[in-house]
Amino acid sequence: MTANEANAAAGPANPGGVNGTKNVTGAIGSGKKTAAPHPLGPLTGAEITQSSGLIRAQWPEGTGFQFKVVTLLEPVKDELVPYLDAEKAGQTPEPIDRKSQVVYYLRNTDKLHEAVVNLTANKVESNVRLGPFIHAPGDAEEIVALEKAILEDSGVRAEIEKLQLPEGTVVVSDPWIYGADGVHEGLFSDHKRVFQCFLYMRDPANSTEEDSCHYAFPLPISPVIDTVDYKVIRIDILPTGHDSTVKPLGPWKGPVPPNEYIPELQPNGLREDLKPLQVVQPEGASFTVSDFSPDGLGKVVRWQKWAFKVGFNQREGMVLYDVHYDARPLFYRLSLSDMAIPYADPRHPFHKKQAFDLGDVGAGVMANDLRLGCDCLGAIYYISGVLSDSEGAPAAYPNVICVHEQDAGLLWKHTNYRTGRAVAVRNRELVLQSILTVSNYEYILAWNFNLAGDVTYEVRATGILSTQPVDLDLSAEPHPYGTVVHPGVLGGYHQHFFSLRVDPMVGGREGHQQVVYDEAVALPRSEGENPHGVGYTVRRTVVDTSGGYDLDVERNRTYKIVNTGVRNKVNGKAVGYKIQVPPMQRILADPESYHFRRAEFADHSIYVTRRDDRELFAGGYYTNQSRGGTGVRSWADRRDRLGGGEGGGEPVVWVQFGINHIPRVEDFPVMPAEMLKVTLRPVDFFDRNPALDVPPSTQEVNSW
Amino acid sequence: MTANEANAAAGPANPGGVNGTKNVTGAIGSGKKTAAPHPLGPLTGAEITQSSGLIRAQWPEGTGFQFKVVTLLEPVKDELVPYLDAEKAGQTPEPIDRKSQVVYYLRNTDKLHEAVVNLTANKVESNVRLGPFIHAPGDAEEIVALEKAILEDSGVRAEIEKLQLPEGTVVVSDPWIYGADGVHEGLFSDHKRVFQCFLYMRDPANSTEEDSCHYAFPLPISPVIDTVDYKVIRIDILPTGHDSTVKPLGPWKGPVPPNEYIPELQPNGLREDLKPLQVVQPEGASFTVSDFSPDGLGKVVRWQKWAFKVGFNQREGMVLYDVHYDARPLFYRLSLSDMAIPYADPRHPFHKKQAFDLGDVGAGVMANDLRLGCDCLGAIYYISGVLSDSEGAPAAYPNVICVHEQDAGLLWKHTNYRTGRAVAVRNRELVLQSILTVSNYEYILAWNFNLAGDVTYEVRATGILSTQPVDLDLSAEPHPYGTVVHPGVLGGYHQHFFSLRVDPMVGGREGHQQVVYDEAVALPRSEGENPHGVGYTVRRTVVDTSGGYDLDVERNRTYKIVNTGVRNKVNGKAVGYKIQVPPMQRILADPESYHFRRAEFADHSIYVTRRDDRELFAGGYYTNQSRGGTGVRSWADRRDRLGGGEGGGEPVVWVQFGINHIPRVEDFPVMPAEMLKVTLRPVDFFDRNPALDVPPSTQEVNSW
Repeated sequence: MTANEANAAAGPANPGGVNGTKNVTGAIGSGKKTAAPHPLGPLTGAEITQSSGLIRAQWPEGTGFQFKVVTLLEPVKDELVPYLDAEKAGQTPEPIDRKSQVVYYLRNTDKLHEAVVNLTANKVESNVRLGPFIHAPGDAEEIVALEKAILEDSGVRAEIEKLQLPEGTVVVSDPWIYGADGVHEGLFSDHKRVFQCFLYMRDPANSTEEDSCHYAFPLPISPVIDTVDYKVIRIDILPTGHDSTVKPLGPWKGPVPPNEYIPELQPNGLREDLKPLQVVQPEGASFTVSDFSPDGLGKVVRWQKWAFKVGFNQREGMVLYDVHYDARPLFYRLSLSDMAIPYADPRHPFHKKQAFDLGDVGAGVMANDLRLGCDCLGAIYYISGVLSDSEGAPAAYPNVICVHEQDAGLLWKHTNYRTGRAVAVRNRELVLQSILTVSNYEYILAWNFNLAGDVTYEVRATGILSTQPVDLDLSAEPHPYGTVVHPGVLGGYHQHFFSLRVDPMVGGREGHQQVVYDEAVALPRSEGENPHGVGYTVRRTVVDTSGGYDLDVERNRTYKIVNTGVRNKVNGKAVGYKIQVPPMQRILADPESYHFRRAEFADHSIYVTRRDDRELFAGGYYTNQSRGGTGVRSWADRRDRLGGGEGGGEPVVWVQFGINHIPRVEDFPVMPAEMLKVTLRPVDFFDRNPALDVPPSTQEVNSW
Repeated sequence: MTANEANAAAGPANPGGVNGTKNVTGAIGSGKKTAAPHPLGPLTGAEITQSSGLIRAQWPEGTGFQFKVVTLLEPVKDELVPYLDAEKAGQTPEPIDRKSQVVYYLRNTDKLHEAVVNLTANKVESNVRLGPFIHAPGDAEEIVALEKAILEDSGVRAEIEKLQLPEGTVVVSDPWIYGADGVHEGLFSDHKRVFQCFLYMRDPANSTEEDSCHYAFPLPISPVIDTVDYKVIRIDILPTGHDSTVKPLGPWKGPVPPNEYIPELQPNGLREDLKPLQVVQPEGASFTVSDFSPDGLGKVVRWQKWAFKVGFNQREGMVLYDVHYDARPLFYRLSLSDMAIPYADPRHPFHKKQAFDLGDVGAGVMANDLRLGCDCLGAIYYISGVLSDSEGAPAAYPNVICVHEQDAGLLWKHTNYRTGRAVAVRNRELVLQSILTVSNYEYILAWNFNLAGDVTYEVRATGILSTQPVDLDLSAEPHPYGTVVHPGVLGGYHQHFFSLRVDPMVGGREGHQQVVYDEAVALPRSEGENPHGVGYTVRRTVVDTSGGYDLDVERNRTYKIVNTGVRNKVNGKAVGYKIQVPPMQRILADPESYHFRRAEFADHSIYVTRRDDRELFAGGYYTNQSRGGTGVRSWADRRDRLGGGEGGGEPVVWVQFGINHIPRVEDFPVMPAEMLKVTLRPVDFFDRNPALDVPPSTQEVNSW
């Protein structure tokens, strides 16, 4: 049951039934269609076709293409700001040329190109071949083809033979990005684009079950395959003990029990005592969605004084633009800019395992259709996307973002003990959620807005561990690089790093954004000021130079984005938003390692750079087999002066957070979600608690 | 609409309406009545009367009493464990004598007594007068009487006169615990029990509004009153500038606008576009509640393989006992053991501001009736308590704990990209919540159980800042000790510290509990083991001595409670639960200060002590005007050997967390809740994800 279906509905609410579709008189979906292009609107299908067509026309007839990215090239801010200003003022903005960025290979070659297409002028503005160490992301078509090629390879089959697997066993190959270590690339020549793959099998006792969790049956064989000719160029045999010794392949030692997650294969059935819990919104949702760009691809969402634009692209998936609260500017652009997941196992070939899921594949192309296994409750609105396939044709990505409201418990309460009167206000949140499947793993990513002016980015990490084989007779001893999560199965230690890019306009577009941090510091004991040794105060430090910055819990160090041109009416302080980010253990790989050099954002919780419109991704544009030097650390190292209106550049803030995942047995076969949250929260931005005008929760409307 | 009302209901669900009472076929509330005493059952009204009666009988007729605490004295664990074991085995346990602890003054004296009453034997076992620096908590009756005495005091009235307040102004006095600084106590003699009070006024333009937020109008007068004779013994005039200068009282400078939180006084009315969101449980709740002690006071809650007992007392409020999952032991006792809130302002008399809300007043006596401003959604079950009033008579505390389920988003999901099949399981949580009102401030405290074996303790801090006056002409300049949150109103900086007491039986009662911490450490680069510099491993350290321990984010230090006698079947590791606690800034007051000495738990995130059945409260039993030396730091300093079954004592873990509250303008007049969570999460305790048997969220039951 979704609000989409109910746009046209009217009349009284009917929440009486349990199953089936209901009518809601929702405010969702104005149905207004927009035909005019908008500089921030995602590429339409027609624009994708136009882009790839213009590229094809650059080459001789009969040339094959493998399009990797056909995406909106957003205008630079100097052009964009006057446009948005005019739009906000209700004026007709000066149009801006629509442009796309196209990344493609000449098919079955290593010739990678990056082009800019001016869609308005209908011409290719630039089209350059990229250098030897730059490789494009994987795509869905090639991942399927790689698995097929590997399983048909005679060398791989010969190695599998040595395992003498049970009759009928189905072997599965999981693709993995090759990573980089500065060594083996040279063996292949400097420009080979390769995948490493890990082999598994389905439960040999239930081989026909296509949804058998093969991660419970890892095999010690890892082929490396060239993505130009789909030839296996090396077969690595995995170490399965505690050290780097590689044993000759011998008969697989079974039987090992399966460990299935699909409900019909649970050994003791399913729980029967969890009763239904339904979220009913008899008057519909409180938000509205309308189009700001053609084909319904760019959406404006309005809810409880919030207003912002939503886009969707190949690399970042969901992107938010032009975020306002009560018509006051807050953020130009909010996006998850990158992820890095370096593994702990130093043994060949695991030492290269470091995924950059956004740059290596793309958050857009991995986004789930959220109507399959519909994941939310209440009145839901789905946003769909259009991306390019490898032939440069438009591909529909239905229902990749869901929008819904949720109750979030009490937001504030006070009881006057003298009168006994209690005033309690519940929190409501607006959630925009995407879910990525990165072969074995899932990321549930959500932007979350509340009634008190907070914006929270929430990550839930779930899905299946990328497992590796471990000798059965070693299972009972602690392993140095992972946890035995099932007999013969090691869940390797790994770190997760996320980088959130925040391009601010807190309190105004006029260019007075400043990043500061405040610390709570004890006062020295002194007869005059602090005779009893209890005093402390707050000290402010201005971040006036680009760089990597750290948290300091012992000083309660809190980063804030403030507007030096706008003062709070109550206390005269610069209005601001603070960044609440949980402390993380920085990357453990040493600074000389390729893990460290590639994960340019995994060493500091905060990076601040001077805004450059082409610097969007913390790990650099091309992360696949990257070698470092192209991401936020490098940009920050320019030591740019920052100052907003005071003479330096405008700051962009990169917020890093993550976990060190030391797997538990409980994390297998599918892990209960680990949740991380970053909150952007007003500080002296409003004149009082902005949620005082939320009607108290009398339960007259919320109870039933 | 509560499940209590619906216990007897049967028949089909009827969630069709919005208002009014519905019938649910809930599993809640078996209605079984228990008459037999249980060693963990809260004191019944009869037992309270019996206790105070036996104490009264110790003294001459006509003696007046001020009973502060009449509470269950829980049996020591050596007695309790065999009882619980027999109970669990379905046998008839050997009865244990019921005992109470009684703390009382001879009325209008400083003669404080602590007694133990054997209720089974109907006799007073001990009854001792406590020494000069020990003071009992405040009680509701005395707080009302103190305000009255202060406002009638001619000296106070003379000071108020000097302010020349507008005609008709209503002055209000907020009680505050006096604290300690080691200096002024001596001026009064060593044993005076006093309160300091802060004066405010209602909005002078709306003086008849009893729910006017007087915290927007702080006055610079702070009387100190003796609680024996209710005489004002000193009137402090507050510094209102940036330093400790105290100016002579002069005419109040107005007008200052009000800042009201009650809905009918919002200047622009209330939002009208937030539509109802209802939680409907057509088949009722999934949990059951039954009685384990007489008068319905001790409750057993069962839900989704969880089973535990719930008690309620004067000091801690809600306490959980005998927590099991799937019949496997986890925790003997879980409780919030203490809070401390030291303030930053070093100037007299603010330098003494440090509240210990549990010890200074009591979480039980401050608990809200949750049907007044009913705060939850869905099918709710309320638990009521009985405590003692100051005359030693039973006092009803209705609806002090609410029990309900809530949806908590996705618990786990995996999409098989080869087949497109998605399996998504939603999380459900069982919440047991209490809300405390500590005059100006509110704490929303909840235990939260989920489907994957996690227990989370959640604190939401809300309510109103304890404000102080600040000169209007200074409002625009940064203040060293607080934030100007309203014209003339300073919200002083303060820290919040919470201490959770965890008495474990993880995996068994047999006495093999061990506290350890694991750290993720980088391996040195080496040709053999770590040639590429990416490797890291996990190192375990056993906490074998009582003490205070710290987090270390840079080492991913994670504390765990493991059972060395029970091994995980999959990987042979000691089964355990880890403690996920957010890092906190430790107390900023220096180690010689009374703030530091009194807040015995505010300097380390983890304390581990050898279990002593009488050591329940981290700040010591008597925190009011305490001077330190009687809490967890002192107990840990015994440097006891810990080892569970290996020869040392059994560990008790004290988990500290908190925030440094640097107020925002947005935190006034009522602050949006700041949330803190501590999670106890299984680590290698189960053989696989324990939530695999939760039915997937097909939306057939949860949607509508």
